[in-house]
Amino acid sequence: MSKKIVVVKAKRDEIAMNLVHETAAKYGYTAEFYGDLEEAKPHLEDAEIIHGMGMGLLKYAPNAKWYCIASAGVNGYDADYFDERGVLVSNSAGTYGTTIAEHIIMMATMIMRHMFEFEDCRKQGKWLGHQEITTDFRTLCGSRILVLGTGNLGATFAGRVRGFEPESIVGVSRSGRPVSDFDRVISMDDLEKELPNADLIVMCLPGTLETENVLSRERIALLSKDAIVINVGRGTAIDEDALAEALESDRIYAAALDVFREEPLPETSPLWKTKNLYITPHVSGQETAHITRELNMRMFCEDIENYCNGKPLKYAVDLHRGY
Amino acid sequence: MSKKIVVVKAKRDEIAMNLVHETAAKYGYTAEFYGDLEEAKPHLEDAEIIHGMGMGLLKYAPNAKWYCIASAGVNGYDADYFDERGVLVSNSAGTYGTTIAEHIIMMATMIMRHMFEFEDCRKQGKWLGHQEITTDFRTLCGSRILVLGTGNLGATFAGRVRGFEPESIVGVSRSGRPVSDFDRVISMDDLEKELPNADLIVMCLPGTLETENVLSRERIALLSKDAIVINVGRGTAIDEDALAEALESDRIYAAALDVFREEPLPETSPLWKTKNLYITPHVSGQETAHITRELNMRMFCEDIENYCNGKPLKYAVDLHRGY
Repeated sequence: MSKKIVVVKAKRDEIAMNLVHETAAKYGYTAEFYGDLEEAKPHLEDAEIIHGMGMGLLKYAPNAKWYCIASAGVNGYDADYFDERGVLVSNSAGTYGTTIAEHIIMMATMIMRHMFEFEDCRKQGKWLGHQEITTDFRTLCGSRILVLGTGNLGATFAGRVRGFEPESIVGVSRSGRPVSDFDRVISMDDLEKELPNADLIVMCLPGTLETENVLSRERIALLSKDAIVINVGRGTAIDEDALAEALESDRIYAAALDVFREEPLPETSPLWKTKNLYITPHVSGQETAHITRELNMRMFCEDIENYCNGKPLKYAVDLHRGY
Repeated sequence: MSKKIVVVKAKRDEIAMNLVHETAAKYGYTAEFYGDLEEAKPHLEDAEIIHGMGMGLLKYAPNAKWYCIASAGVNGYDADYFDERGVLVSNSAGTYGTTIAEHIIMMATMIMRHMFEFEDCRKQGKWLGHQEITTDFRTLCGSRILVLGTGNLGATFAGRVRGFEPESIVGVSRSGRPVSDFDRVISMDDLEKELPNADLIVMCLPGTLETENVLSRERIALLSKDAIVINVGRGTAIDEDALAEALESDRIYAAALDVFREEPLPETSPLWKTKNLYITPHVSGQETAHITRELNMRMFCEDIENYCNGKPLKYAVDLHRGY
């Protein structure tokens, strides 16, 4: 049995690959890198450790003992199949907080500062004088921010946005346990009480049964007229139809969605044309940033060390629970 | 002689106006608010204190003893005329740092995350899959940031961007005196040494003789291929032609300009169509945000107290020096 690690990744950096090569070599492993499943297929048969995304990889790797999932979200992975085969599983939560926090702050400020309108004018070569700007700018400074999910994404965002001097940063989690950088953390049971007081609602929830429809029609009805909703977690957490109706009727201020119930969002989806709804194609946390890819490989290497030393995986994930 | 304060402001909030009314009343003054110079003209004759923008206001106020300029920049004000008439003058530097810092971070992240392309796709209802994204995202995290000007704008930005964990935040000022939230501050004399090492160059300079063409053709030639230039100070600080050439030839990464040598930027300006140049119409610090207007009036009220108590104005400005 060869001691082989296979990493499947569309974008690869020298630094990140060398990290894996070096760590692998320390324990007598070799590491191979492929761009996608098709390319990797002929090389998976004797792989002991795999890193990548999707169930397909694992199915072509009958000898895999550990699968490190490159994403933070693990919805779509068959927990029972892993159990049956006795394959260890870890994920990459912790990789994406840095880049996603920058996405959230970008989208929030773009909405608050009417950047979408200025961008339309710029394309037409039109100087929109400030006397023509009829609606006020808003600022993160002084905003009341509500963050659903206080894991890596929510906490990293909270840490970044604090410096802007918002009026409050309230976290919402299942347990309601305190997390640093939040003024307070409430439990999901108290969500209804907080919704009417939030200017900015940031959703950083994984796609689990429990988070299904957390922002339901009833809860959307509780939002204030100033509410801006940003979702970077999973699309299943929002009632998309109810959100679109609230936006179309100006009952809430705006929304920025990076994740959807169906991805890619179909061309026929009415969400594309919904008023004050700003769509990005699930890019807030993609491995499009060098820093993300490097962090991703650093975390993987930490667990290669653990695995080879017979220690528990630091980034082990419970697929039944979903995070 | 009536004790009268005239405030000229297009956008006015109740809270901010009440602040002025209350402070004025304490010292036996009345305060009047008008939308623009035309509206204010008939009421300026007997005004002792005026707050607003432009030389016109002062010319219609022969009895003015103190002019509080509502902007931070004081270029375009005739220092000698103030001297001759013996009118005190203050400005509103300090009002705009909060909102401008949010603008800078918005523009930087939009450029780093290819938001302009995603926005084009969104308008066409097109999901740009991450496998189609050929150029990397960049992050504020890990960036080397150079800030020209360490006054209110530069320092507020530095304080906000620190939380994003940039590799370094270097300030540049005339004196090179240390300012908190900067890793170090260098003097203008050492600027050339730093320019090649900056990923993000943020220009927060006032429009003075000394800052004219600070980012000259020669200095633009020193910038790295990754350099992103953001200007929120005054347009005179940049050689616009040289910047446009560097952008067109991909010698630098991108630029976001909110200020220009000529404003409004003429429809015929080639800058509108310059590659990787993103234009906003001098809105980074306009009083379009409630928080800015309130802060503006709070500072004015502080100085009404000083003025009425015979103390020096806290926000006095030297028009000869330009800041």
